[in-house]
Amino acid sequence: MRITALAGGIGGARFLRGLRAALDADPVLAQSELTIVANTGDDITLFGLRVSPDVDTLLYTLGGGIDEAQGWGRADDSRRVQGELAAYGVQPQWFGLGDLDIGTHIARSLWLGEGLTPSQITERLATRWGLPEQRIRLLPMSDSPVETHVIVERDGGPEAIHFQQWWVGELAQTPAQRFVAVGLERAAPAPGVLEAIREADLILLPPSNPVVSIGIILGVPGVRDALRGAVAPVVGVSPIISGRPVRGHADTCLHVIGVESTAWGVAGLYADFLDGWLVDPADAAGAPAGGPVAALTSRVYDGPLLMSDRPGAGRLARAALDLALELRG
Amino acid sequence: MRITALAGGIGGARFLRGLRAALDADPVLAQSELTIVANTGDDITLFGLRVSPDVDTLLYTLGGGIDEAQGWGRADDSRRVQGELAAYGVQPQWFGLGDLDIGTHIARSLWLGEGLTPSQITERLATRWGLPEQRIRLLPMSDSPVETHVIVERDGGPEAIHFQQWWVGELAQTPAQRFVAVGLERAAPAPGVLEAIREADLILLPPSNPVVSIGIILGVPGVRDALRGAVAPVVGVSPIISGRPVRGHADTCLHVIGVESTAWGVAGLYADFLDGWLVDPADAAGAPAGGPVAALTSRVYDGPLLMSDRPGAGRLARAALDLALELRG
Repeated sequence: MRITALAGGIGGARFLRGLRAALDADPVLAQSELTIVANTGDDITLFGLRVSPDVDTLLYTLGGGIDEAQGWGRADDSRRVQGELAAYGVQPQWFGLGDLDIGTHIARSLWLGEGLTPSQITERLATRWGLPEQRIRLLPMSDSPVETHVIVERDGGPEAIHFQQWWVGELAQTPAQRFVAVGLERAAPAPGVLEAIREADLILLPPSNPVVSIGIILGVPGVRDALRGAVAPVVGVSPIISGRPVRGHADTCLHVIGVESTAWGVAGLYADFLDGWLVDPADAAGAPAGGPVAALTSRVYDGPLLMSDRPGAGRLARAALDLALELRG
Repeated sequence: MRITALAGGIGGARFLRGLRAALDADPVLAQSELTIVANTGDDITLFGLRVSPDVDTLLYTLGGGIDEAQGWGRADDSRRVQGELAAYGVQPQWFGLGDLDIGTHIARSLWLGEGLTPSQITERLATRWGLPEQRIRLLPMSDSPVETHVIVERDGGPEAIHFQQWWVGELAQTPAQRFVAVGLERAAPAPGVLEAIREADLILLPPSNPVVSIGIILGVPGVRDALRGAVAPVVGVSPIISGRPVRGHADTCLHVIGVESTAWGVAGLYADFLDGWLVDPADAAGAPAGGPVAALTSRVYDGPLLMSDRPGAGRLARAALDLALELRG
């Protein structure tokens, strides 16, 4: 079975680790190949080093190196390098990079400088993290640089800042007018991305941020069309539970784009290609009576949608898998 | 009093820390300004980061951050970043960069990328290390990239390798044919270098490597002429004691350029501008009877030339200072 998923960082990574565990625990599905298309719109150059937060979170989570409590960065990391940068007065200091994590960024930046593509670099990094042995292929959504910017309201009028500055540096507190994914319109899908969607047997959308993670991947020219035309059923997991985001500031992002912060509001963003939608019992009642969302096969997941532990993430992934298998028939 | 010194890494840094201590302990000389012209021919790009070993050793030694036992790198450093690079298969691994040290290299590389010159960067780094408060001005010899390469004998014939690879990676064991300082002929002295030589009251040469440290600085167009024309007396300290180098592989380097590895052989390299020469008692007897070296005012230093501790380095520097003051009259 070939399974393809689109993913952002923490939520996507935890869901996909659960999915791999669910697949491995299934005698029939254990040999399945999992291809992950990662959002790279969060990528940022910090201290001259290229950081790819979602790719790294996926690598570390799936490879066993993640800081579990934090959800991003490396376990048992230290901040000695960044402490030196601070002592030298280097800005910004709102983004905390650990020493082990910086090793990844130095390697990525070195290889980019040598002319390797993000795809080739991700493959090298994934090898070290043992993803091929787990039958996981991790692809950046594009080899072209895409950077999500946020137009915020400052005293002097609108100002564009990097998504990470808004999200991490300002905790999404600064009123935002809109998102602009710089470079997205002319970004080609990375090698293998469209094929992974077209040739998949099942396609899953983890509960990643629908605006700045999944939404950015969907904006890569060709990706949305490939999903619309995919043979495989597309099943998503709601990132909104009882009107609140699983984590992060997804509700704030939805508000910025003028979409209702509900499980059904998010489903509406995917309605042109989505076949199945997994929601929390608390959200089941709010399903619209008509329109494209009403035509979806939605299923109420009776466990917690919140992936508070690894078994929980595994059960959630299994439920999404079961819905997809059912829709595939 | 304005004192100018040319310097390489470890030996130069220890001598100059001793010099600063000797100046500070002297009621008349405590306010003296010390300008150091540092060799940058050892500079190398490792893992995409620009490393300037002699500048960094001078910064850390004079700023109180040096690994005293090792003589280079930061005290209490760790190797977490490089461990990650090794795990990703990044080469070379023969050069060990500590995490704190990497902070310096990231800052330097970032600022180079922003268009700052090595002079401007060195000034920023020196500020953090408190050099201005110590009345020390640290100048790179040039803002143009210069890299000392070594032509070694390999199976297939001569091959050029970076000096650091030969020195650190191969411990200067690989037979060398000659040194080539790439970029040296067209390197302009950094701002302030020629002025610091011309306007100095005293000029000192620490016991740095005469071939690959002092020798490279002397090769920057204009530097040697400035020394020849300097008003100040030029006093050097022999890096060779009883025919053996104070540290490092200076004897090997002298052999490569066909110069006798003695205190007098080294003096011969500086004879066109040197006024005073401090030698170990064991070497005093070998002074040539004629020629330019015989015309030097040489002085036997009755303490150890080996700077095994800070007070020892201070006494040696004081002796060099006294000889220079005497020659200045």
